[in-house]
Amino acid sequence: MSSTSPVKSEQFELAIWRLKAGLEKKFSKGHPWVFSSDLDQSPKGVSPGAFVELRSSADQFLAFGYGNPTTLIAFRTLARIPIGRDARQLIGFLSGVLEQAARLRHSVGIDRLSHRLIFGEADGLPGLVIDRYVGRSPDGTRGQVFVVQSSTAGADQLLPFLLSSLLGFASGELAFSGEGRALPIAIVVTQDSSARGIEGIKKEPRRVVQSWSGFEPNSFQIEVQSVAGVAPYWVNFVDGQKTGFFLDQRLNVRLAWPLFERAIALAVQQGRRLKMLDLFCYVGQWAVQASLATKAQNGAIDVDLADASAAALALASRNVEEVGGTAVARKMDVVQDIGKLPVGQYDIVICDPPAFAKKKKDLPTGLAAYQKLNREAIRRVRPGGVFVTCSCSGLVTDDDFESMIAHAVRASGRDVRWIVRGGHGEDHPSISEFPQGRYLKGWIGVVQ
Amino acid sequence: MSSTSPVKSEQFELAIWRLKAGLEKKFSKGHPWVFSSDLDQSPKGVSPGAFVELRSSADQFLAFGYGNPTTLIAFRTLARIPIGRDARQLIGFLSGVLEQAARLRHSVGIDRLSHRLIFGEADGLPGLVIDRYVGRSPDGTRGQVFVVQSSTAGADQLLPFLLSSLLGFASGELAFSGEGRALPIAIVVTQDSSARGIEGIKKEPRRVVQSWSGFEPNSFQIEVQSVAGVAPYWVNFVDGQKTGFFLDQRLNVRLAWPLFERAIALAVQQGRRLKMLDLFCYVGQWAVQASLATKAQNGAIDVDLADASAAALALASRNVEEVGGTAVARKMDVVQDIGKLPVGQYDIVICDPPAFAKKKKDLPTGLAAYQKLNREAIRRVRPGGVFVTCSCSGLVTDDDFESMIAHAVRASGRDVRWIVRGGHGEDHPSISEFPQGRYLKGWIGVVQ
Repeated sequence: MSSTSPVKSEQFELAIWRLKAGLEKKFSKGHPWVFSSDLDQSPKGVSPGAFVELRSSADQFLAFGYGNPTTLIAFRTLARIPIGRDARQLIGFLSGVLEQAARLRHSVGIDRLSHRLIFGEADGLPGLVIDRYVGRSPDGTRGQVFVVQSSTAGADQLLPFLLSSLLGFASGELAFSGEGRALPIAIVVTQDSSARGIEGIKKEPRRVVQSWSGFEPNSFQIEVQSVAGVAPYWVNFVDGQKTGFFLDQRLNVRLAWPLFERAIALAVQQGRRLKMLDLFCYVGQWAVQASLATKAQNGAIDVDLADASAAALALASRNVEEVGGTAVARKMDVVQDIGKLPVGQYDIVICDPPAFAKKKKDLPTGLAAYQKLNREAIRRVRPGGVFVTCSCSGLVTDDDFESMIAHAVRASGRDVRWIVRGGHGEDHPSISEFPQGRYLKGWIGVVQ
Repeated sequence: MSSTSPVKSEQFELAIWRLKAGLEKKFSKGHPWVFSSDLDQSPKGVSPGAFVELRSSADQFLAFGYGNPTTLIAFRTLARIPIGRDARQLIGFLSGVLEQAARLRHSVGIDRLSHRLIFGEADGLPGLVIDRYVGRSPDGTRGQVFVVQSSTAGADQLLPFLLSSLLGFASGELAFSGEGRALPIAIVVTQDSSARGIEGIKKEPRRVVQSWSGFEPNSFQIEVQSVAGVAPYWVNFVDGQKTGFFLDQRLNVRLAWPLFERAIALAVQQGRRLKMLDLFCYVGQWAVQASLATKAQNGAIDVDLADASAAALALASRNVEEVGGTAVARKMDVVQDIGKLPVGQYDIVICDPPAFAKKKKDLPTGLAAYQKLNREAIRRVRPGGVFVTCSCSGLVTDDDFESMIAHAVRASGRDVRWIVRGGHGEDHPSISEFPQGRYLKGWIGVVQ
């Protein structure tokens, strides 16, 4: 195994910041962030991402975390207990955070296959995501890949400490239910999210900091939970989006499953092949699940995969074909060219676009794009067919989404019964103090 | 079989109302309601609930529905095709509505056991709910009970026509998957919802308009879907709340199931009995499901059932004991006396109160009551235990609920990770034109 960069020194730098008088009670009960206007003096002079001890105006310890003098959010909490400047203490603390997150995943029964282990603030690690993928390298070796995504200057600073904790944790006793401990470990670090711009830090190439012989970061077949058992997907940790796969859709897939089953049963009964349209298919998550559901009924499925990325389409096609579906890859700008796809033909249409609104000012344009897209997507559903529509834009509230979709339904000229609203899966917990953590909307309906 | 009251005449009265000029486009695309201010003249002079044909200002047919001159909502749509004054045509139309609703339930795979067949506006029948319960009368006869709830003056007018349609539909070919057609039929009509006051109509005693020999409306064991197979519940259609059971919780139960399983596994592993608190237990829906999950793991469960109704507690205790749980009935005003229940002791706490806010003006008081209740309920969870909290108040928006629960968590002094947000089950569809139809919030979390 190659090894991670070791933590350089036993002691690290620690700045002391103080809240304005009277704000300690608000902070101690609440939000894990502090805005620069709540500090008793300008945070300038500290390097972005530096470790900070937050104190009350009376110099009482409040929290350990990291700071950034260049962003509106000046301080993000890591611990409400003192960590001091001691590297080993920080690594020990982070190991505890990983263990707590793993226990939570275990307690909700989702830690045997691929899952999100750390989801930022909700798991106490702002700016960080860790997805744990279980699967096989091309030579057939089974292993576990931790993809660590760092999006803030402070998370970058935390990385060497976190990687030390992660290595110990992953090979330790508490790791995962079942075979976890016995599986070889790879770690991929991604520091290229668009959020980094706001933090004033540049994107870095993805790197493998731990691996096993035979592990190939650009070709790994992950195992994802499916009602049918296990859904396998070839993914690319080097050139893929986010951490390589969208684990957040698991709940929505599970909620849509009974509707898929009935649509498949109907097609089978009518002696025809199921037709599915997977818009923004990426690596074919939805198409693979529907193909597995079709196979379980001895049916046949033709999937039109639509995406702008040829690389994603190649993976998606391979993934669909490996579980018995027939895939047609349609490389296209979906929003622009969806009108060219056949109307009223598909038993199942999935509309799972990327975030169209990443900044507040983009919201009106983003909502207009979602609306046009949904109108056209709804028109493509066969009467009685299933429609799944999602938005992963955190800026789009539940109310925004509801209103957008109402306009889209009206403009489509079709009649939609919404059956169930989904959202994040169980490995994306949220905390009440941090509603910003919730971003995924997912509505599932039947189109007449 | 006894028979329903026959439709009295072949022709019924029909008023003609016209929209103000220019509003027909808005109506034709949109909401199933028309407010009195949108009509070209006062709707006075028509009796509440009368059938109305809505026309454009240019006298073009727009919709068939019912009117009420005494309420803000003057007109509610039943059909966008002309029905005229012909009783047989209306009955035929309503049969089509029932068939479409049944097809939707079939297409989402939930029509074999008890389910909501008609959910008001979302199924095209404003003011009406029909729950179809499959189960056994005390003599062991298996049958199906349709509980029809009418909440508006117009729905009352529609009842005789609807009952004719329902009888034909239920014994017809299209009825339900599996054994549906072979099962004897009972129909119970409830006209006692608090919403009737707004409509200016009085509450009526519940009545059985169709039954089979051996059917007892005050004692029937329904069969509800469970991950463990079938969950049985004794219910009372005469003195029970709403239609006798809260079918809307099915999705939330399913989403909470994996968390229940893990909590049970932990207790079993530690060699102890699971402790559960079911607040506002009614007939013990949650407690029965958790008892079934416990039995599946050969564990043992003690449930504290809390409710203000002795009759509900008696049913709940019976239901829990019949599936192997041990029940302690605690008759209490839950909001007032929850503080007397032990703190930090329960592996699972369910907080599923009635609607505290039924009118806009009650919202602040209602939210304060929810908040206090949730604070105390959270405190009762054992560290690492499961907490399920719901609100069935349609006036409480998602945002209201989120903010209320954030305050409750903070005040509880405990740390909650929200794992999944639920809502209505698949037999409570919604339409974009009628967002008012969504009312149920359900959050599921783990309390540290």
